Amino acid sequence: MERVRFFYDFTSPYTYLASTRVDEIAARTGAEIAWIPVLLGGIMKATGNQPPAMLPARALYMPRDLARWAALYGVPFRMSPHFPINTLGALRAACALAAERPERHRLFADACFRAAWADGRDLGDRAVLTSLAAEEDRAFVSEAMDAPRWKEALKRNTEEAVAAGAFGAPTFVIGDDELFFGNDRLELLAWRLAHGAEAAR
Amino acid sequence: MERVRFFYDFTSPYTYLASTRVDEIAARTGAEIAWIPVLLGGIMKATGNQPPAMLPARALYMPRDLARWAALYGVPFRMSPHFPINTLGALRAACALAAERPERHRLFADACFRAAWADGRDLGDRAVLTSLAAEEDRAFVSEAMDAPRWKEALKRNTEEAVAAGAFGAPTFVIGDDELFFGNDRLELLAWRLAHGAEAAR
Repeated sequence: MERVRFFYDFTSPYTYLASTRVDEIAARTGAEIAWIPVLLGGIMKATGNQPPAMLPARALYMPRDLARWAALYGVPFRMSPHFPINTLGALRAACALAAERPERHRLFADACFRAAWADGRDLGDRAVLTSLAAEEDRAFVSEAMDAPRWKEALKRNTEEAVAAGAFGAPTFVIGDDELFFGNDRLELLAWRLAHGAEAAR
Repeated sequence: MERVRFFYDFTSPYTYLASTRVDEIAARTGAEIAWIPVLLGGIMKATGNQPPAMLPARALYMPRDLARWAALYGVPFRMSPHFPINTLGALRAACALAAERPERHRLFADACFRAAWADGRDLGDRAVLTSLAAEEDRAFVSEAMDAPRWKEALKRNTEEAVAAGAFGAPTFVIGDDELFFGNDRLELLAWRLAHGAEAAR
């Protein structure tokens, strides 16, 4: 079974879109998709990349493009009033859940993506964030947000993504560095998983 | 019947890939796709955009990404040894054919894309370029390459693309400014053409 690392940050609307499709791809191809929280800003800084909306013409285009993908996928979407979202606390909490309560990491991540990109909520707000955790995880999440241990974990994950060749999000990696960048590469990723590495070269 | 403007420059490998798919999309959706030569460098300059490969991590990724799309599409591809290609003459000749011998514009454009991105030939070389034209167009193409009239036509096309919101290539536009950017948006374009503007919002 092929393992795919899925590097995500809640601040990225294209990553939200991709997150709604990965289960279907895993089911279709038999791959295991491992969700790994990273700080997109850290990846951008390490690689010298800039947010795509820095370009005015692209900033005009992006909301329409995002709305189209959401319509194609049949998932709710609206531009976040809190963009760029402060996701540091949310990502540290996700690191903590991934490490210590992995059975609820994904539930929390899905709730965060939906809150940010379907419901317009602010993940930078501690009360919002803890409310997104399962009841038994709320104290754990609230504590994890500021804990040096999870701050370090997030930093390590971000370095791991950069080491694999990431320069944005979402990034998918098979093996060491077989990288697929962007929601718009899910089709290529699925094709590669279905047909093997040789066919995809 | 919906009309789609397809703004292209031979220097763009993603535009080559897209060019191999537009007939299938037109056939599937009943749309008419109008090929319009533009100078990608002019679009970049007008909008402040930069070639994606300026970013080192992305420059590493792009050849693999291009090869994957080509494999998925089942079309030949190799990175051009002449990149960034000087396509000024080729694009002016394409403008001239589009205006005066439209029945062979597309034939010439396809030959240029293939020469650049499957056969590694240099479109900046006059002998190469004229050899890509149909025999009865060779003198015409050779003359058009330097003619002020077609230089102006290319400039106007490029301004037209920018006015429609383009910031890169390939760019597809329905109506005034319903813009789709990138080979990776062909699926969205086809979906919009098949389902209408309302469904795609």
